[in-house]
Amino acid sequence: MKKFINDVSKVEEQMVLGMVKAYPNYLKKLDCGNVVVRSNKKEGKVALISGGGSGHEPAHGGFVGEGMLDAAVAGAVFTSPTPDQILEGIRAIATDAGVLMVVKNYTGDVMNFEMAADMAELEGIPVKHVVTNDDVAVKDSLYTIGRRGVAGTVFVHKIAGAKAEQGASLDEVQAVAQKVIDNVRTMGAAITPCTVPAAGKPGFELGEDEMEVGIGIHGEPGTHREKVRPADEVTGHLLDQILGDIDYVGHEVAVMVNGSGATPLMELFIINNHVADVLAEKGVKVYKTFVGEYMTSIEMQGFSISLLRLDDEMKQLLDAPANTPAWKEV
Amino acid sequence: MKKFINDVSKVEEQMVLGMVKAYPNYLKKLDCGNVVVRSNKKEGKVALISGGGSGHEPAHGGFVGEGMLDAAVAGAVFTSPTPDQILEGIRAIATDAGVLMVVKNYTGDVMNFEMAADMAELEGIPVKHVVTNDDVAVKDSLYTIGRRGVAGTVFVHKIAGAKAEQGASLDEVQAVAQKVIDNVRTMGAAITPCTVPAAGKPGFELGEDEMEVGIGIHGEPGTHREKVRPADEVTGHLLDQILGDIDYVGHEVAVMVNGSGATPLMELFIINNHVADVLAEKGVKVYKTFVGEYMTSIEMQGFSISLLRLDDEMKQLLDAPANTPAWKEV
Repeated sequence: MKKFINDVSKVEEQMVLGMVKAYPNYLKKLDCGNVVVRSNKKEGKVALISGGGSGHEPAHGGFVGEGMLDAAVAGAVFTSPTPDQILEGIRAIATDAGVLMVVKNYTGDVMNFEMAADMAELEGIPVKHVVTNDDVAVKDSLYTIGRRGVAGTVFVHKIAGAKAEQGASLDEVQAVAQKVIDNVRTMGAAITPCTVPAAGKPGFELGEDEMEVGIGIHGEPGTHREKVRPADEVTGHLLDQILGDIDYVGHEVAVMVNGSGATPLMELFIINNHVADVLAEKGVKVYKTFVGEYMTSIEMQGFSISLLRLDDEMKQLLDAPANTPAWKEV
Repeated sequence: MKKFINDVSKVEEQMVLGMVKAYPNYLKKLDCGNVVVRSNKKEGKVALISGGGSGHEPAHGGFVGEGMLDAAVAGAVFTSPTPDQILEGIRAIATDAGVLMVVKNYTGDVMNFEMAADMAELEGIPVKHVVTNDDVAVKDSLYTIGRRGVAGTVFVHKIAGAKAEQGASLDEVQAVAQKVIDNVRTMGAAITPCTVPAAGKPGFELGEDEMEVGIGIHGEPGTHREKVRPADEVTGHLLDQILGDIDYVGHEVAVMVNGSGATPLMELFIINNHVADVLAEKGVKVYKTFVGEYMTSIEMQGFSISLLRLDDEMKQLLDAPANTPAWKEV
């Protein structure tokens, strides 16, 4: 294993410290584990918290700031944070307006976030949650029952975060978060695995000419393995699965071409070139496109495509100001 | 070679098309090769152009927009654009206030940009230029005489771009660009090579436990090769070289921890954790930090550290609004 790290047992902590030291105007770290919150708490609004295992940077700490999240809780790499850590995050950000948890659909995450919510409610903090499950690749997987929550989650952070910033109630913020979930679909592929530092070796093996199609953000198996094909063919296949899941034709969409950590922007733009062409041909209008690293898998060479079907409310909230380390909307 | 590409001969064009299709509000592509300019030309200000070989994305097209560049010219991967392409870029953005070229110090780039400037001046367009050479690792290298221009170049785009946006003269914009060059130093390291698509194999080989220290942004040799050491030791060594080159103690600096294309943010933050600690210990005050991919080397696993020694003018220009695909300053 070749990585720019120190002690494997300190990867998560040193990463979070390095993030907070980079962005002290945005973030501060709580004393109880790897929980980051906005450096200036904003009262009177619904507070948003998300998180999960580490290894998906910039998710989720990079999205803490004005117009998006109020707290991000980072577990060990690819491991859910504990209920105690999540509870500390909730306590730190709670306002009278309540707290919304944005949870990706993995059994451990859902269980631990729900336990934290129960504990918070005993303390009188109103907590609601949504569960993202945008991955169309597989139903039931290594870490979860049902579809997995992947890069589409970041659209939930952006849109629900904007709604909260505008002063909406907890029910309203939850409703728009659920609307994003109902309208976003994602699928990915990878040509190399990733290595959890504490494991010291890749989570799976791929042949010299192989790719995994429909891969999850922890390197979980997808729909199948096959020989690497030209980018346009891979892109076309993923789009077919996404476009076949809900009806996008005639609608406006937000597109996210998300890198898995080690895929150069060069390749993500080549992929987007074909995404744009296919959508134009099929009568799906692109409202806004995001190309870059939003929800990664350490140093996996892979990507995912997310399509969010928009209405006027979601368009307005997607365009609303945001100022976080990893997402700025001017 | 495993990559998400199509025909190797179309990599650069499909990449630039994919970028323009992602950001139509920011960018448009000229018909003459891979040249992108702002979609809305701004008259009355000095226009900035930069560029070089492809493979360094988001540089340089990602920095075209309000407060930074007006045009970016992309040659083939790791190959200078031709004088004709550069001239087309200059013509497209030229205003009465003139054009500043920001050129990285590689023999081919400097020669071709200077030829383009000569041709533009024959057409009556006032053109000046600066040459960035921030890499402290080696003097004279595979592609150039003197020090190489690397990630510090992006600070030149930001600060000179802000000065131009504020209505400064060509001489003033050139002067502040040169001031950034005089005050910025960079050095990097890598643990894997990168593969130019047209070559089909890595530009060099590294053993299973080896790293190249002082590596260039095209994978050129650095100062030496050695066994991989913990991130803090590598970081400490690079900082020693940078801090030993000009006097930073007692000054405020901007820090850039730049990923080479395949280094996960996890590792860049671990590196920044130590950068922040070392600078604090040595009495160098961090004004602002940037962690991410700014000047990459396709899919190389590596990073560089840049330190820019600031004065009040540079601080104000660094903080000035910017709105480009890859750098937004809110």
